[in-house]
Amino acid sequence: MTGLLDYFRSTPRNSASLAKERLQIIVAHERGVRQRGPDYLPKLQQELLAVVRKYVHVEDTDIRVSMENEDGCEVLELNISLPENNA
Amino acid sequence: MTGLLDYFRSTPRNSASLAKERLQIIVAHERGVRQRGPDYLPKLQQELLAVVRKYVHVEDTDIRVSMENEDGCEVLELNISLPENNA
Repeated sequence: MTGLLDYFRSTPRNSASLAKERLQIIVAHERGVRQRGPDYLPKLQQELLAVVRKYVHVEDTDIRVSMENEDGCEVLELNISLPENNA
Repeated sequence: MTGLLDYFRSTPRNSASLAKERLQIIVAHERGVRQRGPDYLPKLQQELLAVVRKYVHVEDTDIRVSMENEDGCEVLELNISLPENNA
């Protein structure tokens, strides 16, 4: 999972994306293959959103959530569209 | 910033990474070029860590934080090494 920040930087941003406000949160928990614990990401997701809402106004309808679990890596992705002039 | 989850999936994981437990949190706030607001990510960082600590044991020394702000996109990255058999 290294180099993720490089990926962010290298992703070209077109003029459409420049006009938008967007908040993206990725949580990845990479477990050893044999190590299994309770999946806490669904609960974590709710708490993360509660924290974010202290700082920016977020409508429920503007949130897209995806959760993946494969090869011992759980990934929670929150994509939030923010109204303009938020924060 | 689309396709980030695809990037996660496509990143090859070697045997060393399989043995580790790691938690990575990325928060990216993509603002319009002309829209500037207060930088809330440093405060958000502390609160996110507090939430994560409800679920897993995290030592201060096991956290690496980086914060970037360029081209209207603020990116907060938390990399946390977890002790084995955590959670």
